Formats: sequence, structure tokens, C-alpha cells
Amino acid sequence: MEKQTIKLGLLGFGTVGTGVVRIIQAHQEDLQKQTGLGIEITKILVQDAEKSRNIVAMEGKLTTNPADILEDPEIEVVVEVIGGIHPAKDFILGALERGKHVVTANKDLMALHGAEILKKAQEKGCDVFYEASVAGGIPILRALVEGFSSDRITKMMGIVNGTTNYILSKMSQEGAEYADVLKEAQALGYAEANPTSDVEGYDAARKMAILATLGFRVPMKLEDVDVKGISGVSKEDIAYGKQLGYEVKLLGLARRDAEAIEVSVQPTMIPKSHPLASVNGVFNAVYVHGEAVGETMFYGPGAGELPTATAVVSDLVTVVKNRKLGVNGRGMVAPYKEKILKDDSQKLSKYFLRIVVADKRGVLAQITQLLADKNISLEQVIQQPYNNDKEAEIIMITHLSSKSDMDGVLAYMEQMDIVTKVKSCYRVEGGEQK
Amino acid sequence: MEKQTIKLGLLGFGTVGTGVVRIIQAHQEDLQKQTGLGIEITKILVQDAEKSRNIVAMEGKLTTNPADILEDPEIEVVVEVIGGIHPAKDFILGALERGKHVVTANKDLMALHGAEILKKAQEKGCDVFYEASVAGGIPILRALVEGFSSDRITKMMGIVNGTTNYILSKMSQEGAEYADVLKEAQALGYAEANPTSDVEGYDAARKMAILATLGFRVPMKLEDVDVKGISGVSKEDIAYGKQLGYEVKLLGLARRDAEAIEVSVQPTMIPKSHPLASVNGVFNAVYVHGEAVGETMFYGPGAGELPTATAVVSDLVTVVKNRKLGVNGRGMVAPYKEKILKDDSQKLSKYFLRIVVADKRGVLAQITQLLADKNISLEQVIQQPYNNDKEAEIIMITHLSSKSDMDGVLAYMEQMDIVTKVKSCYRVEGGEQK
Repeated sequence: MEKQTIKLGLLGFGTVGTGVVRIIQAHQEDLQKQTGLGIEITKILVQDAEKSRNIVAMEGKLTTNPADILEDPEIEVVVEVIGGIHPAKDFILGALERGKHVVTANKDLMALHGAEILKKAQEKGCDVFYEASVAGGIPILRALVEGFSSDRITKMMGIVNGTTNYILSKMSQEGAEYADVLKEAQALGYAEANPTSDVEGYDAARKMAILATLGFRVPMKLEDVDVKGISGVSKEDIAYGKQLGYEVKLLGLARRDAEAIEVSVQPTMIPKSHPLASVNGVFNAVYVHGEAVGETMFYGPGAGELPTATAVVSDLVTVVKNRKLGVNGRGMVAPYKEKILKDDSQKLSKYFLRIVVADKRGVLAQITQLLADKNISLEQVIQQPYNNDKEAEIIMITHLSSKSDMDGVLAYMEQMDIVTKVKSCYRVEGGEQK
Repeated sequence: MEKQTIKLGLLGFGTVGTGVVRIIQAHQEDLQKQTGLGIEITKILVQDAEKSRNIVAMEGKLTTNPADILEDPEIEVVVEVIGGIHPAKDFILGALERGKHVVTANKDLMALHGAEILKKAQEKGCDVFYEASVAGGIPILRALVEGFSSDRITKMMGIVNGTTNYILSKMSQEGAEYADVLKEAQALGYAEANPTSDVEGYDAARKMAILATLGFRVPMKLEDVDVKGISGVSKEDIAYGKQLGYEVKLLGLARRDAEAIEVSVQPTMIPKSHPLASVNGVFNAVYVHGEAVGETMFYGPGAGELPTATAVVSDLVTVVKNRKLGVNGRGMVAPYKEKILKDDSQKLSKYFLRIVVADKRGVLAQITQLLADKNISLEQVIQQPYNNDKEAEIIMITHLSSKSDMDGVLAYMEQMDIVTKVKSCYRVEGGEQK
């Protein structure tokens, strides 16, 4: 007789782990109807089995010994919600080695060691799903792999870090300074005590590496992503952006032109009319442009106990369905295209540039001549006095320019006597050919 | 030796059919890599085999005889892009009867006869997929069935008709009248010569019936959907809406409270801060609220040759993968919950109400007393002169009220001497408990 229940081991019992248990308990009947099998949480790996928890009925299932899960032949699926690389990676490889399917929410691990983990899964005929690793509650990985399977994705743009989006939204709405909003976000629990991974863009970069790998079917690595965070974004930048019709967002960009790819995470000026410009607070959104489908966008909560846990349990449902159908380990799309990265001369963007210059006759002419010499033409220019009588501020939006040309201009400007300071330089979304 | 190619018959060679052929031709290599099988279009059913077409390499494959496809034992998958009920329904049932899998873009058919078609598919172990039938380029059906499989969806709201959204967006942006914008939309090909199905909400109602069936796992029928179109929406309604912080959209609503369900399509005032309020032009968007995931939204093109064709081909990829895995006909979630429809006393909404009244002392008091007597309290009221000196216009936004109470008030008002005319009454989004 066929088994009526599939046994699950849960690695980690923090926020997401608790959410997973809650959802499985609350939706047992629905899950059973969808998959034809019950899901039983057999064991939960915790750091401290004595700690009091507000979920009941899990007594006797807690263990501090990973072998109780990894070496239990009855457990067919392991859900990893510990996070981080060690020991999560060893646990997952250990589970796969023993033929267990894996569902994980671990973006760090999948961004850094996804290839190794998927290879092991393929060898062992096991499923590995990780929908929760990118944009928690948004089923974006599924959409990329299945929904767009017949299209050719040319561009993905993501607001994939809730902390930085909360900070930038607040700065924009209240005209507040970065440092003040960061403190507030920390007090509210939207930013961590050490916010580096979020505010410097590393978290978003991991997610973009995962999105680019799946969307372009190319094995992207974390080090392929150009990263710049938001700690240098000032309230003046945001105010000038608004004046010119833009919002500043920490935007992940993955583009391909012909077969050459660029992936970056950087503060970006987005036209107010773009659907991404109105994604505010801790929400995430991923915009996908496919040759055939055109523009689409997926919007939702990027984190949180239940949204993330929902993504985990949806993956779990797929594993259980696959097991029932006897097709585990065959559903994944391994990257099969060669990775060709653009060099900087191929990365084309409009740029926002804000510089402080000596307030002398002919300065604007000198600056614009320099740009013209470097093949950069201007779409908008504002010049105005800066703080005192001796300096002026020039704000420019360029037409499409290559990153190498722009880097050359910035380096040259830093050396010019008339330039006091290059205050800021951001990519501006728009203007490229699709 | 396993077959290397799967043979496909295409029913219909109009806009979407042409797109399907284009995409299969352009992505043959990608499709092969994803599924391990080539896809060969063997025959195409057309009305006129002599008509000139701008797709080459299809000569000799055109037929005017459906039996050439339906009775060809080599053809394993039939793609139906004729549209309408007859003869599409007979073709699809005929294909299933002979064990062929079906992919269709036909919302009319799936909304009206989906249950019969899915039953036949189940009997025959065949796949039937219809992602393209709702919101063309947005993979929303997949998201509902798979992405949210572990969640409990409580509310879906959709801008699922591009024609009406184009008209309302234009009216809002330009302060234009309905009739003028409709004419312009017809000239541009965004509205049909006979626009009834779009502007009266029937097209959107079909899509909402499909969404509600999949999202709530309940067998919803088209006649379960309350429908009201946009032909009565005036530029004044839109202007007052804006003044009060709302945009008017033709909104599909599917809600469930406990197990009781309501599904409607009607002009609705949406707060400007809501992500649906900024979905403009022919774009579609579906907002989904799940108990665990919270708010999500899917945005994209709702129609068009390539977006719709992409959805068709993505379904085709799923059919081919399933066939390779030997699991066709087992992937569908048949509705398994009992259908419990709300009665009007259970349908709670805020309302926008615009009435013209005699401009006499005490009229506002009489109107507000009437509402109070019917359990309806007010959130905002504006009174102002109307056209001449003898009348006044009262614009109100109510707190939550039941549809039956509101219908009662409207009927009563029509009889009141002091009320010249009830100009408009729209549902206002917001204010309910989640």
C-alpha cells in the first residue's frame, strides 16, 4: 500500500521555521487534498531544546543533533531555514547524499554554492527548491523557470531588499537623512544592528545572482555582480531626482544584449511613471522584460515569517507532488548557456551626475566640453549656487553613455581644479533599446 | 528509442496562432534544451488555405479540415486559438476524446464549459492548460495553483480587461468623456467595433470566474459573478474620485470571508496609494491577498500577439515536460471545495454616491438621516451647487455598508421628492478587515 504521509525534518526553528510549522499545521487538510499525502514534521533541529516556544505539539520532536534528521531513513524531505553558509551547506549536502529532497530559504548559500548543491541533487535524483530565497512572498523563481519558459528574457530589475527600500522610501517621503532613517529602521526591526549586508547591497546582489542564473540560464556568480550600496545617498540626491522626475531606488539590474550580460546592484534613478518607482516600504518587486511578453512585474512582501514560510511550503508541495508522480530531481533547469559578461564599454546607461564647481565664468562650458570629448551628451542640466558665493552646483542627466566613458569622466573631473567635488553619480533607468 | 519530437496541431492561425508559430520557430533550440524534445507544428487549421500570410515555411501544413488534426494519431497536442464557444468546444472535446493534450487561450470556453472540459481531460489522462485565457502575458494561473498552494487566498482583485482600462486611464489623464475615448480606442484597435463584451464587463467577468475557481478551489460559474460595466462612468465621477483620493478602475473582485464567496466586476474607486491605481493603459494586473503571504500583485500585458502566444507556449512546454515524465493529466487541481455564495447582506463595501437634490434647507440632513436609518455611516461628504441655483450635488463616501442596505437606500432615494437623480454609485476599495 502506498504511504499516506511524507516525513519531514526541519533544520532551524527561528522565525521562518516557526512559520513553516504554523502553515503546515493550519493547512494540513488543504495540503492533503492537493498532494494526496499528509505532511508530518518528524523532527526539528534547534540550538536549545529547552527554550520555551509559543508553538505547542512539537514537544519530543526537538533535537540538537543534526544526525537525528540527516540519518533518519524515514525522513524524505529536509527543510533548511537556518541561513548562512555553515553549517547549512554541510547539512544540505549531507541530506542530498542520503537521497533526501531539500527545500531551502537560504539565498547566501544558493548564490555562493548553488551550482555545487544542484549538481549533487542531480546525481542523487533529488529535488532542491529555493523559492523563498528571493523576494520571500513573490513566486518569482517559478515564474522565471516555468511562466517564461518559452520567452527570451532580456532584462530583469528588482527591488529585492526590503531594508534599503524602506530607508529610501522614508527619505523620499519625509525628506529625511539616511543616518536618521537607518536608526529608525533599526529601532523598528527593519534593519539589523549591523546593517552592512543590506545597505551596501550585498544581500540584493545575492538575489540578483540567483535571478540572473535562472532567467538567463547562465551560471552567474556573486562576483559577477557590480555592487554599490545606499550609504552614500543623500537627501539632496533624492530631492534633485524628484525635481527631474525620478525616484531613487536600490535597483538590481540584470540585462542581456545579444548574449552579453551585465548584472549590478546600485542606487538608480527610476522615472516616476515606471511601476517600480511606486514600490515603497519593505515591499519587493521584480520587473521582467521578455522579448515576447514585454513588460511584467511581480510585487509582494520580500520577507517576514509567513510570506517566506509560504514560499517554503509551496516548494514542499511541489516536492511532495513530484514524489507522488515519481519525478523528483527532474524538474530543474540547470544553466546550459555559456556565460559571456559585458565589459564596461558595453554597459550603456543614462547617468545622473551632481558636482560642485568653482563659480567662475566658463565653468559650465568646460564641464560640458569635457563630457562631449568623452562621447557623453546631456539630456538635462541644472546649475545653481552652492552654499556660498564661490561655488556652484551642476546637476546633469546624460543620454546613454558607457560605464567606461563615465568612469573616465569621473576620474578626470576629480583632477580638475575647477571641480570641488563629485557629489554623486547614479545610473538612470530608461533610454536603452529593448 | 524514445521519440525526439512531439507533434502539434494548431487550431486557428490568427493573431495568437501566428505568435505561437513565431515563438516556436524562434526558440526551437531553447525549447529542445528545456524539454529534451523538439516541437513540430504538423498541421494548422485555417478558414482559407489560400489567404496570403507573412509567415513562411508553413506551406503544405495548412488545412481547412479539422479531422486532419483531430484524427491524426501522430499529433499528440492540440493548441486551440480560434476563440469562442463553437466550434472550439467540439474540437477540444474531440481532441481529448482521442487522448490528445490541449492548450487553449479561450477564456469564454473555460469560463462557461471549463468543468466539462477538465472532467473529460481527467477521464482521458490528458493535460488541459489555459494560462493565456486570463491576463495574457501574466503567469497568474500558475501562481495561483502552484505559488500559493500552501496559502489560503482570501481576496483577488484584477484589472483584467485592457480595453476598459485604456478607456478609464485616458478619461482620468485627459478629463475626457467616455464616448470620445471609446471612439479613439476603436480607431486605435484597442476596442472592437462592437465593444459590448469589454465595456459592459462580460469579458472581465469570465476571467474572474476562472481566477475565483482556481484561487478558491471552488467551482465558480459565470452567472455567480455580479457584473456592471463602465459605459455609465462619467468624467465628473472620475474628477470627484480624484478629488477624494481615488482612481476609477473596472475592477474584478473575488473575496471570501470564512467560506462565503462573492465575485463581481464593477467600476470601483481605488485609493491612489494602492498598487492597482497606477496600472494604466492596456496593462493588466492581478492583486492577490493570501492569509500568510499578505499582499502581492502581478502586472503585465493583458493581450497582444506575443504576450498571449508566450503564455500558450509556456503551457506547451509544461505539456511536453509532463509527457516526457509520463505524468500528463495528473497536474491539475480540480475544485474540491463546496461553493457557498454570499447573499447581498454579507457583501460589505464602502460606497461612493453622487446625487442631485433640490437645493432647500434641510436636504442634507434628510439624506444623511435616511442613510443613518439604513445603518450607513459616512466617511466624507461634499455638497455643492449643481448647474443651476435650484439644485445641489451631494457626493458621499460611506463607511462599510452591505450591498442590500445600499440597494435599499438607492431604491428609496429614487422615490424621494427632494432627490432629482442618483447620478452614480460605485464600490470603494478599502476599509474591510483582511
